[in-house]
Amino acid sequence: MTLDQIETPAALIDRPRMMRNIERMQTHMDGLGVAFRPHVKTSKCVQVARAQRDAGARGITVSTLKEAEQFFTAGFSDILYAVGMVASKLPRALALKRAGCDLKLIADNLESANAIAEFGRLHGETFEVWIEIDTDGHRSGVKPGEARLIDIGRALNQGGARLGGVLTHAGSSYELNTPDALAALAEQERAGCVHAAERLRHAGLPCDVVSVGSTPTALAARHLEGVTEVRAGVYVFFDLVMRNVGVCDTADLALSVLTTVIGHQADKGWAILDAGWMAMSRDRGTAKQTHDYGYGQPCTLDGAPLEGYALAGANQEHGILASTGQPDTDIAARLPVGTRLLILPNHACATGAQYPVYHARSGEGRIEVWERFYGW
Amino acid sequence: MTLDQIETPAALIDRPRMMRNIERMQTHMDGLGVAFRPHVKTSKCVQVARAQRDAGARGITVSTLKEAEQFFTAGFSDILYAVGMVASKLPRALALKRAGCDLKLIADNLESANAIAEFGRLHGETFEVWIEIDTDGHRSGVKPGEARLIDIGRALNQGGARLGGVLTHAGSSYELNTPDALAALAEQERAGCVHAAERLRHAGLPCDVVSVGSTPTALAARHLEGVTEVRAGVYVFFDLVMRNVGVCDTADLALSVLTTVIGHQADKGWAILDAGWMAMSRDRGTAKQTHDYGYGQPCTLDGAPLEGYALAGANQEHGILASTGQPDTDIAARLPVGTRLLILPNHACATGAQYPVYHARSGEGRIEVWERFYGW
Repeated sequence: MTLDQIETPAALIDRPRMMRNIERMQTHMDGLGVAFRPHVKTSKCVQVARAQRDAGARGITVSTLKEAEQFFTAGFSDILYAVGMVASKLPRALALKRAGCDLKLIADNLESANAIAEFGRLHGETFEVWIEIDTDGHRSGVKPGEARLIDIGRALNQGGARLGGVLTHAGSSYELNTPDALAALAEQERAGCVHAAERLRHAGLPCDVVSVGSTPTALAARHLEGVTEVRAGVYVFFDLVMRNVGVCDTADLALSVLTTVIGHQADKGWAILDAGWMAMSRDRGTAKQTHDYGYGQPCTLDGAPLEGYALAGANQEHGILASTGQPDTDIAARLPVGTRLLILPNHACATGAQYPVYHARSGEGRIEVWERFYGW
Repeated sequence: MTLDQIETPAALIDRPRMMRNIERMQTHMDGLGVAFRPHVKTSKCVQVARAQRDAGARGITVSTLKEAEQFFTAGFSDILYAVGMVASKLPRALALKRAGCDLKLIADNLESANAIAEFGRLHGETFEVWIEIDTDGHRSGVKPGEARLIDIGRALNQGGARLGGVLTHAGSSYELNTPDALAALAEQERAGCVHAAERLRHAGLPCDVVSVGSTPTALAARHLEGVTEVRAGVYVFFDLVMRNVGVCDTADLALSVLTTVIGHQADKGWAILDAGWMAMSRDRGTAKQTHDYGYGQPCTLDGAPLEGYALAGANQEHGILASTGQPDTDIAARLPVGTRLLILPNHACATGAQYPVYHARSGEGRIEVWERFYGW
C-alpha cells in the first residue's frame, strides 16, 4: 500500500518521527533517573504503546477503563487509571483486578477514598490508590498543604485500599511558551508533589510513588529529586499546540491527516478538502497561542509545510484551505482537484480520536494499518 | 436498564423529543409540498434513520461513503452522497451501484464531472450526479449564474453519468438568529437553486431534482416553489447552537451526555465531571452566539437546566462545571461526588460522533442501546 492507495481522510503516523519522539523522552527520563509511564490516551493504539514499552517505559497511564481493559488484554498489566475514581466504576476496576491486572486508581476526595476502601473490603480486594495532588490549580487534586490530604491518606490505609503514592499533572504547562517558564512550572510540579508525599510519610502513611508530568514539564524538568516516575502522553506524536509551547519543531510532528482536494472557490482563493472537523476534530488549541494554525497546517506529501496556507475553516466533511495573507486566486492551478496533502493537527489526542485506524508509515514508505479504539 | 445503571459518560437520546422533532420537520415539509431527505450524518444510527423514514422521509443524505455502505446494508437504497466526488472514491461508489444501491453523487467542477463520466463509461455504469450550487457563499458549489454550470451539466450528459438535478445547502443559516433573516436566507437558497435548474433546462439539459436545505432554512421556509426536496440533519436532535439560532427551545434537545460528578475544587466553585471534551467534543459553536454555553448546559436527570451553571472547561476526560456568575462555593454540597447530570451539547453532530452507541430512552424510561458508527 502506498500513500496514493489510502482512502482519504486518513490518520497517518510517521513512524521514524514517532520513534524519535519516544527515544527523546525516554532518554531524558533515563538521564533524570526516573521511571517513565506514558499516557496512552493519546494514541489508544497497542502498537504505539508497545513501541513506548520497548524503548524503556514502565507501565502505562490510561484515561478510561476501556483503555485499561483493552491494553490489559493486549498484555499490559501495570496500569494507572488517572481519572478520579467514583463508586459506580468500581465493579469494572474489580473485574480487572481479578483478571490479574495491576491496576492503580486515583482519588482526590474523602468520599471517593472511602467508597473505594469500602468496596474493596466488601469484595475482599485491596485497591492500590494514589492521591491526586493539585500543583498548579488547573483542574483536580488536593493542594499539597491541605489538611484533608492526610484524612484521604488514612481512609486509604484501613483495608480494602492501599495508599500507593501521589500523582500530579501540571496541565497549565500548555499555556506557557518559554523554556524558563516551563522549567519553573516543572519545578513547581515536582516540589508540590514531593511535599505532599513527605506530609503523608510524616503522618506515618506509606507513599512509595511520586508521579508527576505533562509533556512540556517532563521535557523541561532540570532535576526530579524525590520523584519516582513521570507521565506524558502527547509527546509521542507532538502537535501544533506543542510546537507553539516550544517543546518540539514542526518537523517532529508524527501524526497528520491525509486529505484530497475536492473542489475550489477560485475567486476566494479556497481549496476545498475532504478533511473537515470530523477528520481534524474541532480542537482550536492554537487559537490563543502565538501562531494560530486554524484547523491545521497543510503540507505536501513529503511533509514540507505549505508556508502561508492554513486550514482556515471546517465543516463536518469539508475543510477550507486558504492563504493566510491575500487570497491565492491561482489556488485551483496550484492545488488541482485530486491533489493529496497532509494536514498537521492542532491537537494529536483529539484528531486521532476521530479515526478507527491509523496508517503507520515506515521510513521506507511501507504502510501498516494499526487499530485504534474509542468509547468508554 | 435505568439511568443509574448506564456507565458514564454516555450519549443519551430522549426518544419522545426526537420523535417530536422528526414529526415537526416532516409536517412542515408535507405542508410545503416537498419531499424530505434527512441528512443522517447527525446520528449515523440506523434506528434514528428508520424513525425518520417511518415518519415520511424519502431517501437519505450521507456525508461519507461509509455511511452510504452502512445504511445501504441496513436497507436504505435511495442515498445521496452530498460531498463533492473525486476520482479516487469512484471504485467504492461503483461497488455500491453494482450492489443495487440507488446512489447519487455530486460535483461542482468540471474535473470531477469528467472524472465521474469517464469512470462510468469505462465500467459500463451510469452515475446519477447532481450539481452542487453555491447560494450563500459559505462553502462549495457553482454560483447559480456562472457560465461553467452549463459546461458541468453537459459533461454529465454524455454517457457514464446522468445529470439528475441540482442541490444547495445554505449553511450560513447557522450564523443567523431572527425569523426574518432565516426566512430571507431560505428564499435566497430556494431562488438560487431554482435559477440554476432553470438555466440547465434552458440549455436543454435534464434537471429533475431541485434539492435545498439546512435545518434553519428548512424550518424557516415560507414557500418552496420549484423545489422538489429538502435536506436537513441536526433537527433530529437539535442542540444549543440551534437554540441560539432560534429554531428550537432547550426543551427540544433530544441528545445529551450523561455524566457523573467525580470531584470538586470547592474554593473555586468547580464540580469536576467525567465528561470532558472527549465526551462533549471540542465544539464551541455557541462561543460566538448570543448565549455562550461553554462546553454545554448542565441539567438534572429529569432534563431541567441547572440555570446559572455551565460546563465552563474541558480536558480530555474531565469537565469543569461552574456557576456562570459568582463562584458557587457550596457546590460540593449541592452536587456531591457521584451525582449524575445531563449535559446538553453545543453541536449534536460533533458530540454524537464521540460515541460507539447511543442510549435511547423511551417516555416510560425504558433504555435501548443503539449502535452508531464512525470513520470513513
